[in-house]
This record gives sequence, C-alpha cells and structure tokens, in this order.
Amino acid sequence: MLKETTTMPILRITEAEQSAKDEVVVREFPLTIIFNDQELVTMLCSPSKLKYLTLGFLASEGLIKNREEVNKVLLDEKRGVARVTTTETNTSEGELIFKRFITSGCGRGAIFRSVADPANQYKVEANTMLTAPQVFELMKEFQHHSKVFRDTGGVHSAALSDGESFLAFSEDIGRHNAIDKVFGECFWEGIPTEGQVILTSGRISSEVLFKSAKRGIPIIVSKSAPTDLAIRTALDMGITLIGFVRGARMNIYANNWRISDSTLRGIV
Amino acid sequence: MLKETTTMPILRITEAEQSAKDEVVVREFPLTIIFNDQELVTMLCSPSKLKYLTLGFLASEGLIKNREEVNKVLLDEKRGVARVTTTETNTSEGELIFKRFITSGCGRGAIFRSVADPANQYKVEANTMLTAPQVFELMKEFQHHSKVFRDTGGVHSAALSDGESFLAFSEDIGRHNAIDKVFGECFWEGIPTEGQVILTSGRISSEVLFKSAKRGIPIIVSKSAPTDLAIRTALDMGITLIGFVRGARMNIYANNWRISDSTLRGIV
Repeated sequence: MLKETTTMPILRITEAEQSAKDEVVVREFPLTIIFNDQELVTMLCSPSKLKYLTLGFLASEGLIKNREEVNKVLLDEKRGVARVTTTETNTSEGELIFKRFITSGCGRGAIFRSVADPANQYKVEANTMLTAPQVFELMKEFQHHSKVFRDTGGVHSAALSDGESFLAFSEDIGRHNAIDKVFGECFWEGIPTEGQVILTSGRISSEVLFKSAKRGIPIIVSKSAPTDLAIRTALDMGITLIGFVRGARMNIYANNWRISDSTLRGIV
Repeated sequence: MLKETTTMPILRITEAEQSAKDEVVVREFPLTIIFNDQELVTMLCSPSKLKYLTLGFLASEGLIKNREEVNKVLLDEKRGVARVTTTETNTSEGELIFKRFITSGCGRGAIFRSVADPANQYKVEANTMLTAPQVFELMKEFQHHSKVFRDTGGVHSAALSDGESFLAFSEDIGRHNAIDKVFGECFWEGIPTEGQVILTSGRISSEVLFKSAKRGIPIIVSKSAPTDLAIRTALDMGITLIGFVRGARMNIYANNWRISDSTLRGIV
C-alpha cells in the first residue's frame, strides 16, 4: 500500500519565530494506464485506490461499460502502471481513443467531449429528496472524513451517499480523480449509483455534471462554486446542483424541487 | 470583450431565510486551439486574455519558442477558436504533438512529460532575493487584485512580479490556465520573466515547476500547499518554493537562501 503523504523538511516563518520543521506534504504519483495493450494516458494523482481510479477513469471516458467486460486489471504500484484488458477489442475502439485525446483539454481540468455531447442524452429523473438540514449534516460529515486534507491542505475529496451515510469516499490531488475513484469503486464493487448523492470539495465544472449524469446521480453537493456551464448542464439534465454549503447556508443552482423542508415549502 | 462572469437565478438558504436571488457565477468557456491548421486541443477556461492563454499554452508545451516565429494569431471569440500559424512547419513537429497528447494526463491537472523530462535540463540560477515581509506584502496585494474570485469564489489567479509590483496578472477557472495566461502575456508583450517571481492562488504540482523553470523563474509563492514531487523538482531545479503564505506566516519548502531578512539571518 502506497502512502498518500510523506514528510519533508521545511523552514516555517511565523510572526514569533523561524524554525526548521518536518512537514507532512501530499504525494503526487504518476500512474500510466495501459488499455488493451495501448498506452492511454499518464495521470498525476494521489497514490490511493489506484485500481478504482483506473476503472473510474476508463468508465468516465466511456471505454468500459460494466464489470463483466473487464477481463483483467493488473496494478504494478512500484512502476506506477495499471493494465486493463477487456473481453472484446476492436480496432475502431483504438481509433476512437486516439481521436478523443486529441480533442481533450489536456493537462487542464476538463474534456471537450463534455461540451460537445448533447446534454439531453443523459436525463436524470430519479426523485431522490433531501431536506436542507440533511444537506448540511452530510457536508459536515464529509468534511470530517477528509484526513489527508486536514493533514496537508493539499487534496480534494469526493463521496457517494444515500443521504444518510457514505457508500464510497476518496481523496486525490485532482478533483476529477477523486470523483473517478468513487465511481471506480462503485463500478468494481457493485455499489449502485443511481438515485444517490455526490459530494465534492471542489469547484463544479461541466465535466463533473457529465460524469455524474452518466451514473444516474440526481443531486450534486459541493462546498465550492459551480460555473455557468455546470449550472446550464444541470438544468438540461435535470440534476439538482447545490454549492457553497457552509454551516447552515447553501445555494441551490438548479432543480431545487429535490430539496424539501417544512420551512422551505411555499418557496420551492 | 467576453465577460468572465454572468448572473444566474439561485435559491439561497440561510439559517434566517430562504430567498430567490440573482447570483454572480464564473463562466466556463470552450476554446479550441488550431495550430498550423491542426486541431490541437479544446480547453475549458475563463473567457479573458484568450490570446495570451493560447500563446502561453503553446509555449508551455514547447510548440513555440519566441514571438518572431509566430506568423499569425487569429482569435474568433464568437466561435471560441484561436488559430496560430508559425513561420516554419515540419511534419515531425506534427508527430511530436500527437505523441505528446497521448502521454498527457488528459483532463487532469498535469502532463506526464513534466515527470519524464530530466529536471536538471532546467536549472534556475538567478540570485533574486526577497525579504520575508516582502513576500507577505506581495501575497496581500495579490489577493486584493483578484476581483473575479471575490465576486464568485470560482477562479484561480496568477501573477508575475519583480518583488515590488505586478508585471502581469491573470485569472482563470483552471490554475494552469491562469499561469499560462501570465506567461503568454509576457511572451507576446516582451515582458522578461527571468529572475522574476510567480505568485499563484492554487496548489503547486510538479507541472507548475516545469512551466516556471522554462521561463527562468527563481521564486514561486503560493497561498496553498505543494506536492512532494513539486518540492523535489524545486530542489533539483534550484527554485525557491514558498507555500501557505497567510498573513505573516509561510512555509519555505526549497532553496530558502533566496529569502533574506535581518531576523532570518543565522537560520537560513
């Protein structure tokens, strides 16, 4: 098991003193994914749940659809290589990958395909409901969960919840990685995602909406801000989008009908 | 000129009340870069300084080296397309691009080439010095500068400074984009970067180090945390790496000899 953090010597300056210390810092780990013998991508990530990250990434990219078609997952943690083979391989799939990565926002936080995709292809209709206090409680629990962040201030977290407890929880230096780890865990362990809630510490861009819609997620909750494109996508897809959840405050950006509360009735 | 923010209707919940409001949210804009008639990449970004973003990205990727070789930059803001042509095009360059993007951490915050590159290829030797109070003052100014962040909480900022004032300043929903905008502005407007300071609101991953080393930047200052790989890269490249600058506190992670102060002498 690889460690997510390490200790390094630093010089700390405060008003009172300057001192040499050992500081906990978050690790940045290069993971190369080889898909059906084709080197697909190398991503920099936190070295935890690498198998889930690999599977979540491949599923987010539409390269794998269900566990049955995954033949083998070999993870070499020492070399930072994950090999995935599927039961069927055809050349057209290889070409598809190629094309996709050319039109991707490489090294940036988003993929163009998200924007090009017709949003109405994914319509989330689950009528999961949460009360406002439930949202606040979930976010409070979520923030308590994140140990690496408390230690280092350096990672994002993501979780899948049924509104009561957490079904999956992950951390990563990349906010997309953290979400892919959660979905990869669900994919591999057979945890149903439909009708469940996604919590994230990170800002919400349109890609988070596409990733979530694909898994039938009706409610996304973040402690940060969404972009305009994320809000428009949420409206199109029928997803409830909640941001800036801090203490007993929040903003509902889209489809607020899923958030019920006695004190809310009459407004929404 | 495109707007970086827009206003959208939201439902705000606080302890005291629930109310429908118009909220300022940050825009997410797809920009496609066509380089020598080849569609290179589409990135999601904030729609400001798109020309600088394009040039900064191409320079960061090593596809352009200096202003003289850039023949034309055509920006179609309406369609979200930037076309750049250079004086010389050869096929090997086309292949190089292709290869690069295949090995990239697509849609994630980093590029593998950064890790694969020999770090000692870039050695920053500038003996720029700052005092600790100068660093605190710069960060204070830097945070005051960021208007879009104050309005929306949704963007990162980056700046180039000579230690006294800011020579370039940019904001973007992506932390890499914000830095590329700064370097793109320097590239196009002839602002020398060697020996200068980079400030960033975002976490520092190894890629920020490579981008900066390429431009001869000896000091990187962030309000957030660096990764272990960023620290190791800073040590290898001779770059002074400062993080968690908040008020009159900071951590120096590498090459603290560039930070001088009467109260510091004897320690560093």
